[in-house]
Amino acid sequence: MPKELILATNNAGKVAEISGLLAGQGYRVSSQSEYGIASIPETGLTFVENALLKARHVCAHCDAAALGDDSGLVVPALRGEPGLYSARYAGPDAGDADNNAKLLDAMRDCSGEQRKAMFICVLTLLKHELDPEPVIAIGRWDGTIATQPSGDHGFGYDPLFIPDGFQQTAAELEPRQKREISHRGQALQALFDQLS
Amino acid sequence: MPKELILATNNAGKVAEISGLLAGQGYRVSSQSEYGIASIPETGLTFVENALLKARHVCAHCDAAALGDDSGLVVPALRGEPGLYSARYAGPDAGDADNNAKLLDAMRDCSGEQRKAMFICVLTLLKHELDPEPVIAIGRWDGTIATQPSGDHGFGYDPLFIPDGFQQTAAELEPRQKREISHRGQALQALFDQLS
Repeated sequence: MPKELILATNNAGKVAEISGLLAGQGYRVSSQSEYGIASIPETGLTFVENALLKARHVCAHCDAAALGDDSGLVVPALRGEPGLYSARYAGPDAGDADNNAKLLDAMRDCSGEQRKAMFICVLTLLKHELDPEPVIAIGRWDGTIATQPSGDHGFGYDPLFIPDGFQQTAAELEPRQKREISHRGQALQALFDQLS
Repeated sequence: MPKELILATNNAGKVAEISGLLAGQGYRVSSQSEYGIASIPETGLTFVENALLKARHVCAHCDAAALGDDSGLVVPALRGEPGLYSARYAGPDAGDADNNAKLLDAMRDCSGEQRKAMFICVLTLLKHELDPEPVIAIGRWDGTIATQPSGDHGFGYDPLFIPDGFQQTAAELEPRQKREISHRGQALQALFDQLS
């Protein structure tokens, strides 16, 4: 009988991607929305703490294992910003264009190594609400912040992020290619490896 | 100039061990006691959250990177117990013998695979108080819980823990051998690899 794993997300795309990957590991993947569980405030101070908060919230409602995720862009020259606030960097109602504009402005005096950045994705799997030892899978995608946006694919900071080893931005990569090499792809592979 | 790293512990033995390992990586290691920082309550629900709480408490007092750690014994058949409460399993003033006795009693009906256990050690390095992306290094030492204690070395649950691949308990291993293969040794090696 497959083990049940509930994703702490209402994003159907994430559910489809993770379902496919973990079906071969004997997991039946569903999402919190199928159980009527609402999202909770992300009050953690690190990606891993936010991912754990989300997973634990699901475990508290269902007697099943839960997978939480959190991700964002980290710029060391900005002491980690936009970091946990990547999706709302320019304000609670900000869109991608607003956030990109704010990042370009914050980095207007940065050059060379100071333009280094990384996308981070952390996945945490809690077997039950009080599981002391979650599986933690981290994906990291290194790159550089361009001085102007380019590309129509992707979302978030993709039009500004030039992955190491590439000349174009993440928004100029084919979606399939991005999915394989991105921070999320690497985190999913690390999760898969630990569950195998 | 070496980077400063403050350990969120008052244990001189841990400081000596970690100093030696990280000196070659350009870190000057000190302990929170040198800064008059007291320990804080471990209110996290996972090892990684406790390690982060300890490190963040140090960062809040000093403008330096801090390393927190947390560790314990996890018995899947007991839904993760003693887990975060390994050092105080039999009560707030319990000693090692009390905790070992309580564990043997809790597992009196466990046999075969149900006696599997693992020691976990999690190290977290925060570059500053609001660093969203700490270095996380996890060590895991798998074994089986014996039906009676043996051995005089080590501490905690070592007299009951038979590491996979051994016939004797962790308390019967030479301290140097244990240090290399234990959960703590593996976590330190994983930290070293990530900082290299």
